[in-house]
Amino acid sequence: MLYVYAPDQGDLYASLLRAALPEWSVAAWPAPVDPAAVTHVAAWAPPPGFFAPFGQLRTVFNLGAGVDALLTRDDLPASVDIVRLTDAGMAAQMTEYCLYGVLHWQREMDAYRRQQAEGVWLQRQTRLRADVRVGILGLGELGGRVARDLVGMGYRVGGWSRRRRELDGVVCRHGDDGLNETLASSDVVFCVLPATAATRHLLDAARLACLPEGAALINAGRGSLIDEAALLARLDDGGLRFAMLDVFSEEPLPAGHPFWRHPRVIMTPHVAADTVAEEAVRQIAARLGGGDGGAAPAGRIDRQRGY
Amino acid sequence: MLYVYAPDQGDLYASLLRAALPEWSVAAWPAPVDPAAVTHVAAWAPPPGFFAPFGQLRTVFNLGAGVDALLTRDDLPASVDIVRLTDAGMAAQMTEYCLYGVLHWQREMDAYRRQQAEGVWLQRQTRLRADVRVGILGLGELGGRVARDLVGMGYRVGGWSRRRRELDGVVCRHGDDGLNETLASSDVVFCVLPATAATRHLLDAARLACLPEGAALINAGRGSLIDEAALLARLDDGGLRFAMLDVFSEEPLPAGHPFWRHPRVIMTPHVAADTVAEEAVRQIAARLGGGDGGAAPAGRIDRQRGY
Ligand SMILES: NC(=O)c1ccc[n+]([C@@H]2O[C@H](COP(=O)([O-])OP(=O)(O)OC[C@H]3O[C@@H](n4cnc5c(N)ncnc54)[C@H](OP(=O)(O)O)[C@@H]3O)[C@@H](O)[C@H]2O)c1
Ligand SMILES: NC(=O)c1ccc[n+]([C@@H]2O[C@H](COP(=O)([O-])OP(=O)(O)OC[C@H]3O[C@@H](n4cnc5c(N)ncnc54)[C@H](OP(=O)(O)O)[C@@H]3O)[C@@H](O)[C@H]2O)c1
Repeated sequence: MLYVYAPDQGDLYASLLRAALPEWSVAAWPAPVDPAAVTHVAAWAPPPGFFAPFGQLRTVFNLGAGVDALLTRDDLPASVDIVRLTDAGMAAQMTEYCLYGVLHWQREMDAYRRQQAEGVWLQRQTRLRADVRVGILGLGELGGRVARDLVGMGYRVGGWSRRRRELDGVVCRHGDDGLNETLASSDVVFCVLPATAATRHLLDAARLACLPEGAALINAGRGSLIDEAALLARLDDGGLRFAMLDVFSEEPLPAGHPFWRHPRVIMTPHVAADTVAEEAVRQIAARLGGGDGGAAPAGRIDRQRGY
Repeated sequence: MLYVYAPDQGDLYASLLRAALPEWSVAAWPAPVDPAAVTHVAAWAPPPGFFAPFGQLRTVFNLGAGVDALLTRDDLPASVDIVRLTDAGMAAQMTEYCLYGVLHWQREMDAYRRQQAEGVWLQRQTRLRADVRVGILGLGELGGRVARDLVGMGYRVGGWSRRRRELDGVVCRHGDDGLNETLASSDVVFCVLPATAATRHLLDAARLACLPEGAALINAGRGSLIDEAALLARLDDGGLRFAMLDVFSEEPLPAGHPFWRHPRVIMTPHVAADTVAEEAVRQIAARLGGGDGGAAPAGRIDRQRGY
């Protein structure tokens, strides 16, 4: 049986899954189930110990893109496959999130907001899209799509990934030097990397110093990617115009954290891209042999690699 | 001779025009000229009386889209042709300006800003593009392009113009009833109409009341389109989530005007779309028989119509 953990949308997921997989038995938490019958789980951020009772568990469908929280728990033996959703309606939302930050920088909405508060009427120099350099860290399902969308709109786009990538119209780089070059040639950096051992505090003081004066940083990947103390220092010394942050090393962001009241920080509570239930169900059904018969998307996690 | 009035960019315009029109004599204010030699002027917002000395003036090229300020001056006899620029790099900027406001509404950046100030971590319901209704008032060179761009991105777009229009994917309306219907079915209204006798205070208290609760209004047309007192009342009673205003009935907006400090107003100082000099020169040159030989764009103003 397929058991769903999605507290706010359990009924929605259960009914969509039943329709897509009529042969399957589907239940949604908190409905009680026989733990020995549960072979598959579809879940987002279940509580600690959630998986422990399911001795026959074979596959976990992660109802999102980032699997970092699943890989570090002790109730999921290595024999269980972890399958992530690919895109599932999230990529378009990532483009929106990134674009808002890019427009905020390009159209100087931060400066105009300050001017408004100070009662200053001052027209700033126009900047066209072709003169705005956007650097995208992470060119996977989400970052790759954001890069394509921004190229289509006429921005100058660079990108960085682990392996060498080729994307039309995007200056693709990889490796350590590639990161420094990407940062140094970006007015706005959009971070959409997974949290892994290799990406932890990737953007530390030295890397943040690579960014041009007056650049902006958007983080929609994971909080662990950034050394937050170093970011604060760079914001305080005026080196960065602003940071737009959706993810934090601790979530919810603790009360009193300086980000809450920082004039150069735009904060959102981990909402950059939400899974669209219909699309998630389509992908799960395709893997379980039901649904529209479309090919199952690649999405099995490589535990070694960590994403 | 062609005389240019563009205080910040006089040299740029003069050199671009000389290159495009080698047969023409070109000068830029404040260079002194023989007034009787001036047959053509390219200008943006010249001071009162500027045109009075030019007895041989035949054509004024308006270095922008809106000609309202030219039509009401007393130093331009009706025999002088007024030619406006069409698009000239402005349409893409209008899309950016509109899109920023649309994303601000869709992604609830106003609510998240408030939450940040109050230290509240709360995830709001995701809203997809297909569920956001954008109503565009004015479907000319600028509004037409904004409508097309937003349709291409997947928004639900309605539009309103004086004459009946057809635009792929856009629910086009006209006339009084058409305006009320457009307003009533828009989450975000983007106003990019010209200032004419017919559009003055088009959005008054009654029209603003047509907007759904919680909608947003963006004005990048002219300040005269909106009854600003009625807008303030609608913002104060919470009926509108926010207004994003680039143009005002008096510019610069007077010190102490309530818009400056209003928590639901995003203000910019008439910068939504700036003429791109290279494109303006291309259009002027095409009309004067030089340039790349491309067809001269339509742009002669109908004084009766007022735009
Ligand atoms: N804030 C939100 O609401 C939200 C929502 C969804 C997802 N996310 C985050 O976004 C992340 C990316 O999602 P996705 O679907 O695009 O993942 P993905 O398809 O797995 O792509 C990950 C990208 O990151 C690159 N990468 C991974 N490790 C790297 C390293 N050490 N150095 C350089 N590049 C590295 C990968 O390089 P290769 O191309 O070489 O593999 C790939 O381009 C998720 O892991 C999650 O953390 C956040
Ligand atoms: N804020 C800025 O930075 C900035 C920059 C540039 C322009 N603007 C403003 O934008 C305006 C529009 O520029 P544009 O180049 O798109 O002008 P345009 O090509 O002349 O288009 C004007 C549009 O408004 C419609 N319209 C005019 N009067 C109307 C009425 N009484 N009722 C209904 N619709 C009416 C027209 O209808 P029809 O299609 O039926 O003719 C047309 O669709 C300019 O006039 C200027 O005020 C502002």
